[in-house]
Amino acid sequence: MSSDLEVRSFHPSPESFVWTFGGAAPLARITPGTVLELFTEDCFAGRVRTTSDLVSEVCEVPFLNPQTGPFYVEGAEPGDTVAVHFVSIEPARDWGASTTVPLFGALTSTHTTATLQPPLPERVWIWDLDRAARLCRFHAADSDVHVDLPMDPMHGTVGVAPANLEVRSALVPDAHGGNMDTPEMRAGVTCYLGVNVEGGLVSIGDGHARQGEGETCGVAVETAMNSVVIVDLIKGVPTPWPRLESDDHLMSTGSARPLEDAFRIAQLDLVQWVAASTGMSELDTYQLLSQAVESPLANVSDTNYTSVAKVRKAFLPGGTDLYGTHARLRAMAREYLGTSQGA
Amino acid sequence: MSSDLEVRSFHPSPESFVWTFGGAAPLARITPGTVLELFTEDCFAGRVRTTSDLVSEVCEVPFLNPQTGPFYVEGAEPGDTVAVHFVSIEPARDWGASTTVPLFGALTSTHTTATLQPPLPERVWIWDLDRAARLCRFHAADSDVHVDLPMDPMHGTVGVAPANLEVRSALVPDAHGGNMDTPEMRAGVTCYLGVNVEGGLVSIGDGHARQGEGETCGVAVETAMNSVVIVDLIKGVPTPWPRLESDDHLMSTGSARPLEDAFRIAQLDLVQWVAASTGMSELDTYQLLSQAVESPLANVSDTNYTSVAKVRKAFLPGGTDLYGTHARLRAMAREYLGTSQGA
Amino acid sequence: MSSDLEVRSFHPSPESFVWTFGGAAPLARITPGTVLELFTEDCFAGRVRTTSDLVSEVCEVPFLNPQTGPFYVEGAEPGDTVAVHFVSIEPARDWGASTTVPLFGALTSTHTTATLQPPLPERVWIWDLDRAARLCRFHAADSDVHVDLPMDPMHGTVGVAPANLEVRSALVPDAHGGNMDTPEMRAGVTCYLGVNVEGGLVSIGDGHARQGEGETCGVAVETAMNSVVIVDLIKGVPTPWPRLESDDHLMSTGSARPLEDAFRIAQLDLVQWVAASTGMSELDTYQLLSQAVESPLANVSDTNYTSVAKVRKAFLPGGTDLYGTHARLRAMAREYLGTSQGA
Amino acid sequence: MSSDLEVRSFHPSPESFVWTFGGAAPLARITPGTVLELFTEDCFAGRVRTTSDLVSEVCEVPFLNPQTGPFYVEGAEPGDTVAVHFVSIEPARDWGASTTVPLFGALTSTHTTATLQPPLPERVWIWDLDRAARLCRFHAADSDVHVDLPMDPMHGTVGVAPANLEVRSALVPDAHGGNMDTPEMRAGVTCYLGVNVEGGLVSIGDGHARQGEGETCGVAVETAMNSVVIVDLIKGVPTPWPRLESDDHLMSTGSARPLEDAFRIAQLDLVQWVAASTGMSELDTYQLLSQAVESPLANVSDTNYTSVAKVRKAFLPGGTDLYGTHARLRAMAREYLGTSQGA
Repeated sequence: MSSDLEVRSFHPSPESFVWTFGGAAPLARITPGTVLELFTEDCFAGRVRTTSDLVSEVCEVPFLNPQTGPFYVEGAEPGDTVAVHFVSIEPARDWGASTTVPLFGALTSTHTTATLQPPLPERVWIWDLDRAARLCRFHAADSDVHVDLPMDPMHGTVGVAPANLEVRSALVPDAHGGNMDTPEMRAGVTCYLGVNVEGGLVSIGDGHARQGEGETCGVAVETAMNSVVIVDLIKGVPTPWPRLESDDHLMSTGSARPLEDAFRIAQLDLVQWVAASTGMSELDTYQLLSQAVESPLANVSDTNYTSVAKVRKAFLPGGTDLYGTHARLRAMAREYLGTSQGA
Repeated sequence: MSSDLEVRSFHPSPESFVWTFGGAAPLARITPGTVLELFTEDCFAGRVRTTSDLVSEVCEVPFLNPQTGPFYVEGAEPGDTVAVHFVSIEPARDWGASTTVPLFGALTSTHTTATLQPPLPERVWIWDLDRAARLCRFHAADSDVHVDLPMDPMHGTVGVAPANLEVRSALVPDAHGGNMDTPEMRAGVTCYLGVNVEGGLVSIGDGHARQGEGETCGVAVETAMNSVVIVDLIKGVPTPWPRLESDDHLMSTGSARPLEDAFRIAQLDLVQWVAASTGMSELDTYQLLSQAVESPLANVSDTNYTSVAKVRKAFLPGGTDLYGTHARLRAMAREYLGTSQGA
Repeated sequence: MSSDLEVRSFHPSPESFVWTFGGAAPLARITPGTVLELFTEDCFAGRVRTTSDLVSEVCEVPFLNPQTGPFYVEGAEPGDTVAVHFVSIEPARDWGASTTVPLFGALTSTHTTATLQPPLPERVWIWDLDRAARLCRFHAADSDVHVDLPMDPMHGTVGVAPANLEVRSALVPDAHGGNMDTPEMRAGVTCYLGVNVEGGLVSIGDGHARQGEGETCGVAVETAMNSVVIVDLIKGVPTPWPRLESDDHLMSTGSARPLEDAFRIAQLDLVQWVAASTGMSELDTYQLLSQAVESPLANVSDTNYTSVAKVRKAFLPGGTDLYGTHARLRAMAREYLGTSQGA
Repeated sequence: MSSDLEVRSFHPSPESFVWTFGGAAPLARITPGTVLELFTEDCFAGRVRTTSDLVSEVCEVPFLNPQTGPFYVEGAEPGDTVAVHFVSIEPARDWGASTTVPLFGALTSTHTTATLQPPLPERVWIWDLDRAARLCRFHAADSDVHVDLPMDPMHGTVGVAPANLEVRSALVPDAHGGNMDTPEMRAGVTCYLGVNVEGGLVSIGDGHARQGEGETCGVAVETAMNSVVIVDLIKGVPTPWPRLESDDHLMSTGSARPLEDAFRIAQLDLVQWVAASTGMSELDTYQLLSQAVESPLANVSDTNYTSVAKVRKAFLPGGTDLYGTHARLRAMAREYLGTSQGA
């Protein structure tokens, strides 16, 4: 292992997971630039293991969506940004679980889209995860159909302690990040989060072997993960809503209801990010992005809906490196991967 | 030209365009399978030609978004489906126009998201269209930046006469199609539309040299088009909401407000389409699509918002050919293109 | 009958009802100030008469919500306002019908709030209307409970032909009025509607013996009505959204989705109406109305939701008589009622 | 003072106010049935005192909407209900303040309904409160108009600690109550709140001398209050969403976005409350309430919107006393008022 990288590993015991953003004592204090090797449990706290493990029977509210963390980032203060770079995200099991949950999901009435109808039937699907072939295998319950989909591991949840003295359930996505459930949160991506409290208090969890855009039924192919992230600190640069950067794209997120507000937040944030980075006026940027943006939905099933606004860096005129961070973290990730694979 | 194909050309004069779906006399009666070579005018009726042509000054409500049509499809009756296959969509000019429009667009208050604030400034951008290089060139107004984006021509508007005795403005997207403004409506795609009145009454218009997902400012790179479509008829198969099929994907659309309802409509329709095509149960299909679906937004700026649910055919277990039509229309398109290019 | 009043009576035959706003030939041409004695059929076209008459079996889409009209008002042009003063609204039968309708209503998924759940059970309730005692009697279906509620007759639907060349189903509320379903549309009230086409083309229908605010299940106590209205014309004053005036209140309506947009439209319109009437600035009016307004919901079940913003005239500083019309129509109504009762 | 009543008084010092529901240590432990004489500061923490005290300059996020409490109710456990009966609510000053706040309110874009427009101008109005005449006097800023409105004191905020381990800002309304901002929260009313944590942890604040329905500009006539409440405990009866009871009405609240979801929650809760109280079936109750309900909006400007569903007890068939509490608290209030006035 290279002496340049500080690498620390955390595999929380079941009683060490946290269920909120904010309100939990730090799991550890880390210096900016630390590589974290993390085990994350699935959103069911590992309790849904067979098709007869109904969520309403085996899970216990509010002990859903366990998070690994929080990590207190030395020096992080309100007004700064923490960068969480996903080096690798690897399923820790050869199966994942997905379910319907009563009164949860996009194609059912819910506790807030409240109707007099009974809920949809509760059901569990266990997916096979073939990590060598990078495939997720679906088995239909009502027929003997099976289907293979490409594995595309991601974290549904990454965030910091929220602002305004709040503590939010790990099921909630909002300006502090949290349960955004976007398939864009995959290896190779850097997530920027605005710091609201000293130390930032970063947690991650909710691994998905894959997930469709919108997470229509409310549940992805949920699985425990062995993930490696680098957590860095950008002093003096605020970030109003979670932003993502890959080698090729800049992405803003918005989480709100109704869904058009989530869309508006993400699109406005991307306009303002790109305008600030490129020096173009906001109106010119509004025009350019209106023609250039991709708008993949993240989730339309959580307590807030999450929309992503995404643009190719190649479509932007120079100078998009507002944070000056992603390339450096990518290099650190390559160094880590080189040494860890060579070890 | 092959004797197998009936090819007809229409280049409406300015006074022949129509401004509604429903309520207009047919431009022509056509037999199913006819190839239509169509000229469509841009959404401004061609009146925005320079950066000083403000929409509020040069355009006249309700004479916006002119449509070419409607075409009365012989034999089409309520309960049937018309298929509109886009053979080619080619800009008819070497420039396109985009604008802000007062109280229109996603990042401004509007006539329905009504506020006391003044509207955003009104502005026009003229884009260069390099049809040889397949590029759209943006010129910033407030700096001397220019940016090239790939050309990706599409039709914002395609539809039939609506149900329930209604006549709708060509600016409206709904179950009859209309102004859905999805970049997925490109050459190579078949659009399925449920027939509500005898003859169906198909119109198309609103060509975009390219458009971002969500059409954030409400206006794409608007241009006149020379397009070729094949209009076919599928008897006895109803289509509740507009569906699209490409060689690789099935897509459902939903148009409604709030945006989550547009999402729900599209996702439910895709579940029901795939379940009917594959024989899987609706709950199994709900699960499979929740992990497999792409959900690119179409528009979040029109009178209804439009959401697309999209799935790779390769992810579905056999038998996805509900309509039995796309491959045949593709073959006809190849025949047309072969003969028209060879001619 | 006084010679000052022109009184005309219309009792359409079943085949003479119209089902849309716009797109129908005038039932009659009338001069401004005409008193119209009108019979309106109930929203089911009179087909739901017993608890076994399920809407899905006895009614035929799109033949729902029949309207009496339209009336071509001589001299009415776009930019003018027609005033419809409700002199009296009296149930024409001693019973009314209410129902659940599959996938319609606020506490069920619908065709746009689309879910995989089955619809609620379909059911009919027949209410007794005691016109002497002014009571509506509810009979529970699942127990032998009965309840008397005060009769409070109103019209769910009143409107003019829409703008933008459109024809809208009589089930739709929007800027042209239509199916707003507000209990505020009772006798003694004047409704102001902006004219979009020559003659305005006023229709009314959808009588309710009473209705809760929000019309939660989507259906009121529906009954045929014998109603008397005075239709007047206000030249040169536009009205952007339907407004109501009673002896004591000014009211604006907004119809849109999501419901907050309907709220915004109505509140902004009332701010602008009051500011124009009183000479106060818009910001001062915004402040005053924020403390003074009542905001009773009209419907949260139709294709657009309708919200009402309502303020006591006594809370406004002088000069609220923008239209200069209501008091005059009230006087005409008194004259009509005096003579008609004396006759 | 009667020996039957335990009366305790609390006038927190500025540093003793709390800014959240949940997450704060109890101000006191009380036994059920205690009468609390409370001072509450206004939502600005008393910092807006003149028309030049702009919120953005004199207030400090997150120190907005100070709450008096929380009170730990002895014996309260999850699954119980606490009842907060408002004996009296009296302005503690002879003035109140209202303002615009940048990017806050219904008729402006906001941080979530995000647009590129600049915010509305920031402005303060100071209202005179004539406590003898029970009037609130508005002074227009842009003209010399003044208007008197009836005083109608209420508390915008009352709630308990939330469920799911959360801590919520006092600006948020949700299932735990909080910043619901309904004018129905006036003297004589009992508010029922479901207990989520041991002791319930009741706080109140945000007094309004009066407020319009919907709190359109986001700010009422804000003032400090001297209020008297009786806090009682109902064991073993859960309450899913805050409910209110007056001598004449039952009321349910829902707080969510979009506004139609707030409406659905409140209406469904009232259906279920009335069905449980009367023994009618849910479908029969749905029908009866659809014709009987009043639906006054509470706020359409906070982080969640709040809708109220309200029905006259006289419209319900017997047995509406689910909680068996209101009449008893009213009697205690009369006893308290008799002795306190006589003292």
